[in-house]
Amino acid sequence: MAATYSIHPVGVIRKTGDTACIEIFEAYRDAMLGLEGFSHIQVLFWFHENDSPGHRRTLQVHPRNNPANPLTGVFATHSPRRPNLIGLTSCRITGIDGTRIAIEAIDARDGSPVIDIKCFIPDAKPPADVRVPDWV
Amino acid sequence: MAATYSIHPVGVIRKTGDTACIEIFEAYRDAMLGLEGFSHIQVLFWFHENDSPGHRRTLQVHPRNNPANPLTGVFATHSPRRPNLIGLTSCRITGIDGTRIAIEAIDARDGSPVIDIKCFIPDAKPPADVRVPDWV
Repeated sequence: MAATYSIHPVGVIRKTGDTACIEIFEAYRDAMLGLEGFSHIQVLFWFHENDSPGHRRTLQVHPRNNPANPLTGVFATHSPRRPNLIGLTSCRITGIDGTRIAIEAIDARDGSPVIDIKCFIPDAKPPADVRVPDWV
Repeated sequence: MAATYSIHPVGVIRKTGDTACIEIFEAYRDAMLGLEGFSHIQVLFWFHENDSPGHRRTLQVHPRNNPANPLTGVFATHSPRRPNLIGLTSCRITGIDGTRIAIEAIDARDGSPVIDIKCFIPDAKPPADVRVPDWV
């Protein structure tokens, strides 16, 4: 197994005031074909502000940066500190104009590099009996 | 914006017969603390068998490898051919034993490198009016 894989940004998140969009780089425009058929996408982005050896070495956090929450492994959280700095969120598309995907809102910082987009397909059978710990 | 980010595998997917599990590497064991509180996880893995310049350059596919489906940009699919070879799927945890997470099933190949795990937290308000194209 290779020790390292390479990720190349395919776009960038832009937020101004209450509006948010994803600007896809021109080289990846063709990968957007058919996106307009979907109402929602899953956006994978890079926590670029946290890309330091120290943040990558952080394996446990108090979720939501709240010391009252129990110390938790980052795999059991969505913390921006983690070995591979991938953020994941779902968004509603409000419009597509060329390489610009307008979205309702996104839980990511302005300027975050986008590393992948996947169409959102709801589960035919949504998971039953979902269980989460108290801190959630 | 950096041109490239580095991804280091944190584990590997093992499938034998009808059983599947994720083996987390010892160095990342501490990141699992609290996972047992969740019934489901989101697993990000690397499409290692597709990591070639040609597959990374593929921007459009016939979804599900079916020529009857319309040519579609990879961002509007979950195709294993895409610029950054990240796979994403949700799994039910059936047990945790040390660094081994047993899961119900996973839509990934045996031996796929795991690059991140995130807890699955259901939406407080599931997305309404989800729209998908006919090929889905």
